[in-house]
Amino acid sequence: MERLVLHEYSQSGNCYKVRLTAALLGLPLERREYDILKGETRTPEFLDRVSANGRIPVLQVGERFIPESNAACFYLADGSPLIPTGRFERADMLRWMFFEQYNHEPNVATLRFWLAFVGEARLTETQRASLPARRSAGEAALALMDEHLAGRAFFVGERLSLADIALYAYTHVAEEGGFDLTRYPAVSAWLDKVSRSPGYVAMKA
Amino acid sequence: MERLVLHEYSQSGNCYKVRLTAALLGLPLERREYDILKGETRTPEFLDRVSANGRIPVLQVGERFIPESNAACFYLADGSPLIPTGRFERADMLRWMFFEQYNHEPNVATLRFWLAFVGEARLTETQRASLPARRSAGEAALALMDEHLAGRAFFVGERLSLADIALYAYTHVAEEGGFDLTRYPAVSAWLDKVSRSPGYVAMKA
Repeated sequence: MERLVLHEYSQSGNCYKVRLTAALLGLPLERREYDILKGETRTPEFLDRVSANGRIPVLQVGERFIPESNAACFYLADGSPLIPTGRFERADMLRWMFFEQYNHEPNVATLRFWLAFVGEARLTETQRASLPARRSAGEAALALMDEHLAGRAFFVGERLSLADIALYAYTHVAEEGGFDLTRYPAVSAWLDKVSRSPGYVAMKA
Repeated sequence: MERLVLHEYSQSGNCYKVRLTAALLGLPLERREYDILKGETRTPEFLDRVSANGRIPVLQVGERFIPESNAACFYLADGSPLIPTGRFERADMLRWMFFEQYNHEPNVATLRFWLAFVGEARLTETQRASLPARRSAGEAALALMDEHLAGRAFFVGERLSLADIALYAYTHVAEEGGFDLTRYPAVSAWLDKVSRSPGYVAMKA
């Protein structure tokens, strides 16, 4: 495989997904850190060379770039056991990855970022007005996961897939956004199971 | 292939993506309509049998269900020319599909739904407060697409893929949400090209 470089902000769960996927697959990954609180992914150079969307993570493969965390994970895992071989199961894995970006991340991850990184006092009025809706949508996402995981070991089939990695990243630090994970026992048991996967690395590693 | 049933609200761009994918592939698709304005996807029966997330579209495959529009499209197109065979291109296609759900749909589609279906006068205060941010994020998504498409025929490689279908669905009706597509000439040319694909069906068909 070509040289792999992760353009990242290491405390971002979206970036951690890519590192965790690479670690579970034993793939070497160089890392380049940007401070998003200082706007380092909005510089003309970043926008021109790395990603016009001005967001991390971006996975660099040789001289080409893949923005979007879940697409980067798919690139790394393509052809590996982290992607199911069955047609239905493969689509079902993607279903949870799209759910993660649409229903989970904008709520669970955004509350963590706003409350634990930006600070509630520094939010704009519009951001503050959206807190209750994001809180309730985040709880709904966690409740849906808990219901799905009751009696299941992993999100899809009987083994770890990218669906688990995508959802693990921000769920395991959801308490930093004020979510009480003890309310979701099946989620808590699944988090523990994911963290015991061979090759697992912690977010802060 | 097993019997395919699309649980949908036919004016939803997310549902149209699945119909368009099936049409381009020549796959027969039964349709079952729900009025989301009347809450027909939040009934106990829908939540229990079709999708616990209470959203459409859901693609039914035999007696199994795939929520999330882009995952449903992937299921239908798996192994077809609508998904690139190259590893980088396949991930790049998914990159645009995740971009669509994260940066495009919550802005371009939500403004269309709020302004053309719900009605501005019936929005909640929180929804109304988010209009300027959604407007500017929607314009940014369209501008990014326009920049990418300048000098390109399609989003990935030299041919139509699911990336085009996913982004076409809400872009081609963005004017219903108050976006002026004449500002994005490369997007406009691409919309025209997609609509001339063999097997194409219109949203209202």
